[in-house]
Amino acid sequence: MQFFSDNAAPVCAEVLSALVETNATDAAYDADAVSRAMDDAFSALFETEVASMWISTGTAANALALAALCPPYGSIVCHRAAHIQNDECGAPEFYTHGAKLLLAEGAGAKLTVDSVAQAIADVNTGVHWVQPYALSITNATEYGLVYTPREVAALGEFARARNLGFHMDGARLANAIAHLGCSPADLTWRAGVDVLSFGFVKNGGMSAEALIFFRRDLAETSKIRRKRAGHLMSKGRFSAAQIMTMLRDDLWLRNARTANDAAARLAQAAVDRLVYPVEANELFLKASPEEADALRAQGFGFYDWAPGEIRLVTSYHHSEADVAALAAALRQL
Amino acid sequence: MQFFSDNAAPVCAEVLSALVETNATDAAYDADAVSRAMDDAFSALFETEVASMWISTGTAANALALAALCPPYGSIVCHRAAHIQNDECGAPEFYTHGAKLLLAEGAGAKLTVDSVAQAIADVNTGVHWVQPYALSITNATEYGLVYTPREVAALGEFARARNLGFHMDGARLANAIAHLGCSPADLTWRAGVDVLSFGFVKNGGMSAEALIFFRRDLAETSKIRRKRAGHLMSKGRFSAAQIMTMLRDDLWLRNARTANDAAARLAQAAVDRLVYPVEANELFLKASPEEADALRAQGFGFYDWAPGEIRLVTSYHHSEADVAALAAALRQL
Amino acid sequence: MQFFSDNAAPVCAEVLSALVETNATDAAYDADAVSRAMDDAFSALFETEVASMWISTGTAANALALAALCPPYGSIVCHRAAHIQNDECGAPEFYTHGAKLLLAEGAGAKLTVDSVAQAIADVNTGVHWVQPYALSITNATEYGLVYTPREVAALGEFARARNLGFHMDGARLANAIAHLGCSPADLTWRAGVDVLSFGFVKNGGMSAEALIFFRRDLAETSKIRRKRAGHLMSKGRFSAAQIMTMLRDDLWLRNARTANDAAARLAQAAVDRLVYPVEANELFLKASPEEADALRAQGFGFYDWAPGEIRLVTSYHHSEADVAALAAALRQL
Amino acid sequence: MQFFSDNAAPVCAEVLSALVETNATDAAYDADAVSRAMDDAFSALFETEVASMWISTGTAANALALAALCPPYGSIVCHRAAHIQNDECGAPEFYTHGAKLLLAEGAGAKLTVDSVAQAIADVNTGVHWVQPYALSITNATEYGLVYTPREVAALGEFARARNLGFHMDGARLANAIAHLGCSPADLTWRAGVDVLSFGFVKNGGMSAEALIFFRRDLAETSKIRRKRAGHLMSKGRFSAAQIMTMLRDDLWLRNARTANDAAARLAQAAVDRLVYPVEANELFLKASPEEADALRAQGFGFYDWAPGEIRLVTSYHHSEADVAALAAALRQL
Repeated sequence: MQFFSDNAAPVCAEVLSALVETNATDAAYDADAVSRAMDDAFSALFETEVASMWISTGTAANALALAALCPPYGSIVCHRAAHIQNDECGAPEFYTHGAKLLLAEGAGAKLTVDSVAQAIADVNTGVHWVQPYALSITNATEYGLVYTPREVAALGEFARARNLGFHMDGARLANAIAHLGCSPADLTWRAGVDVLSFGFVKNGGMSAEALIFFRRDLAETSKIRRKRAGHLMSKGRFSAAQIMTMLRDDLWLRNARTANDAAARLAQAAVDRLVYPVEANELFLKASPEEADALRAQGFGFYDWAPGEIRLVTSYHHSEADVAALAAALRQL
Repeated sequence: MQFFSDNAAPVCAEVLSALVETNATDAAYDADAVSRAMDDAFSALFETEVASMWISTGTAANALALAALCPPYGSIVCHRAAHIQNDECGAPEFYTHGAKLLLAEGAGAKLTVDSVAQAIADVNTGVHWVQPYALSITNATEYGLVYTPREVAALGEFARARNLGFHMDGARLANAIAHLGCSPADLTWRAGVDVLSFGFVKNGGMSAEALIFFRRDLAETSKIRRKRAGHLMSKGRFSAAQIMTMLRDDLWLRNARTANDAAARLAQAAVDRLVYPVEANELFLKASPEEADALRAQGFGFYDWAPGEIRLVTSYHHSEADVAALAAALRQL
Repeated sequence: MQFFSDNAAPVCAEVLSALVETNATDAAYDADAVSRAMDDAFSALFETEVASMWISTGTAANALALAALCPPYGSIVCHRAAHIQNDECGAPEFYTHGAKLLLAEGAGAKLTVDSVAQAIADVNTGVHWVQPYALSITNATEYGLVYTPREVAALGEFARARNLGFHMDGARLANAIAHLGCSPADLTWRAGVDVLSFGFVKNGGMSAEALIFFRRDLAETSKIRRKRAGHLMSKGRFSAAQIMTMLRDDLWLRNARTANDAAARLAQAAVDRLVYPVEANELFLKASPEEADALRAQGFGFYDWAPGEIRLVTSYHHSEADVAALAAALRQL
Repeated sequence: MQFFSDNAAPVCAEVLSALVETNATDAAYDADAVSRAMDDAFSALFETEVASMWISTGTAANALALAALCPPYGSIVCHRAAHIQNDECGAPEFYTHGAKLLLAEGAGAKLTVDSVAQAIADVNTGVHWVQPYALSITNATEYGLVYTPREVAALGEFARARNLGFHMDGARLANAIAHLGCSPADLTWRAGVDVLSFGFVKNGGMSAEALIFFRRDLAETSKIRRKRAGHLMSKGRFSAAQIMTMLRDDLWLRNARTANDAAARLAQAAVDRLVYPVEANELFLKASPEEADALRAQGFGFYDWAPGEIRLVTSYHHSEADVAALAAALRQL
């Protein structure tokens, strides 16, 4: 009964089956039929023509997106708690060849137009200062909050006005959309997003995320950079198959709903302990070390997050029984 | 009946089964039990204590190895036809932050002490010239030739004398060892190799190569660089499982033997056409465009390599029947 | 009567004379007699054996120093207001190949052990987080404050305990030493500094700063990086001559004293307006736009720094008369 | 009587005087009047509107030019003997963030359309191969040969047809123009050159080369990169003054003529020893070690270049007497 992270969850059955079915010989790299079908599938999902590519990890997806939007001598505005700042070992700096991350504030890892404006307010023009070229937000955020289409659009408008490229780290985009019930288009390109890291691994996939270019002109050089970074899998059809399987019949959305529902049930059981509202599949709870120990003694696995605070992450694979058991345990604390 | 490349072959059945078996929840990244077992498995195989890590592609494996051996202001001696020079879109330059590849000559993409010595003869000492820091060879070579332990050792001795790190690109190391019948140790660290890219994808794997550090001191920063490059898979146990499966009962060696045997049978059928001796699983054959067309008309797929020259690559999965059919077709040309 | 910046001041007469005297043909790059004499001169000045090199700008000096102390996948702790963060267009990121600057707090751009400890407190170990490798301070700071030997030593001790390289940006080190009356050794290596950017351009030089390696093992690769960055002047003797001239008879110290004295006189005249204590040669003064205009109307040139705040910088070349005139003008505001 | 290299020659008197005259306080960086006048001066010289900037060294000039023309994932075609390949410690790789130099052949370090075409003939399209983005030639070449306007134009046409940016390393452009008697425009932009490194240091300057952008759109980011590389001198007016002085009354051309004439006289004295025709100010002569010793015994300084080969470089400052003496000594060998 592990609630450490959705990124350690099993691969969902449909994806495993797809790997087996994909095993016929086909063209190498991304010239196979499944890889070539991806652009159409994502264009349909997003209701506009997009360019897409599979990529092994969210870190690589984010770093490639940022390299497409920001030159080596530029900066990228992101939240102080952003995954790209804290959890990627400098991948954005590596892929952009040394761009700077300009850190902005906001409760629950959520940026606002004001906080972004404040972050760049001190940057003078001229060659002495690194100039901002891009804005990156995470949806759902690192603390499980969800930007609405309206909130994204406000940031998108700001970005366009300041000539900033706009990237969305959607490692848990599925959870955000499941929460909002909105269309993928409304939450992304219609709100001004240029490039999207669309996560599948945390949601039941094995080793494939999608990078979606609403600005299709950025795709070509990104494919070059993907190869240059050693991310062009020779048997790429296995990556494509994971993504295409999860797109079929909205498996991605169903999985995310399951995860969100589990989180919501747990939130209800621990409503007085919530550090942030639970909108996606992450819970940050106030819990003393003794309380954390008590939960662990009952077989629940999770991370301590901060002094007096634990993190629980639900996933599509958590059984109703496991969730009910944890909910009960939380109530009894 | 495709002989385009071993890198487009199916995944072998044992590996697919392993993916399914690996699907229980475990720790993320490389903290799972399977990943942690890799060092022991490779240490046993190589008869010495090594550090190892899984990595998605051969390009990434090579580039990480080179970054471990060469600073940004250094150069790496390799063959003019080396994969790292021609087929990786500058990945070595990306990962090393701008090191230079110093190209050496040699028939069949094979380096000798003389050709390496000649490549670095013109390099003056001092800060104006990029100084060589590493030597990289491919075994089996890009033209399907195999370095013997003695040949590798001669290069290893030269490298040590000149203070060059020594990398082996073993995308087809299994084929080389199957050909030689030698121990993996004799062909690598006993011959002076510091870091080895050990290929599994071309030999039946799906998405995992191994990077083997005989100089274990280089592993720690390489793990940092792997993360920084977005190559630390969150569900890394699926990468480890592929490798561990192929190590079990020498599956890697049996697969390579199958591929080599197929190539040998084809070589026998086209002995007058061989551009290079066939030692591993690649054949380069003289064939006129008409002859190539005739083969394709019979359903065989392969690449034109040069004017009047075609390339055939065999793999573990080619059936005896397919190989026999192609052999017959070659004989009838 | 310009008080914009010491970096626009004239070159002092002794330096100009030295350029003329240096004009005999000599060896190229840094093989000339003057360049070769630098190590001895600085070793004498610092009372320990150092390695040194001339370099055209403070930005290049700092960036080379940081590249010597921090790998691409590391971070450098510095003040939020540090020159390396705000005024060098990402030179540290360029030269280190993508290291991160980790920003710490402190009044007047001055770091303390506590503020540095706080900056790195959130960094978890492991490959997901960029690990700190270096600490960089500016003395005198960007706001004209001076670290004492004791303060530097406290930071040096912390750096050593945490295994951080320790860099000092001494663009105005001369002013700091003139203020403290201490020995250069006490303020640098005896307090734990590993590499020092020693500024001469702001203090009467034309185009040469010195990079001082108290850890002499770092000099060799830094000389390679200097060449690689296009900073190895072919007529390097003219760079060396500037530095050697300023070392002769403590010209560097006398010039700095002149500048500090001027600043002190201005500070006395505007004691109620001081935003920071005046310890070196920079003054930050509260002044309304109208007051600033009034000063400008009298022919004084300077920058607005913040709303209601101006900056005045004195230099060795300001005449007593100019300083007296500005002091009088400040008093009359 | 040193003939080692023009890059160790004295600074010419006019330039030294200019430094003294420039010493009034002015704006910092490149906002001073002299720096701002450079674009006009070069636009007049080149008979078209250009953007220009001063830069400390030829290595930095070349590297900035190449970074403007080639992305990190591209390659630059140059001669195997090019300065950018052999003498800049990887500066092009550093500034471009890892672009590859693609080496072409040609007698006397001179490229032809055929040799360039051959160098890129093997590059397949697609993401696996680094694609060529730029062509770089050196005029006069590293062996003292001069490309004519017609030869440059042929390469320029080829470059345009293949969509390659075209860079000229003009460290000795003055010598080339002095030899040809052509207009600077004919040898550069009218022949298709996009960016020119225009050398002054080897021709009497101290520490300033000019980078000339015939494609003016490339200047802005190059100025950012110059700062980021630590090459934006705070007292930039001293750099600008050197260049402007050498442009006045064609001092640059007169100096080059003096150097060329000296080389021509020496060539006449050693006509049977010439390895290459002498077109600029460099001589490569067959000379046995004993002959070299004999010259050195008479006080002449120069470099051995290859077994049985020496290099002599003349400069504007060589006196008629010195040249006559060396000519006589050569005749007497």
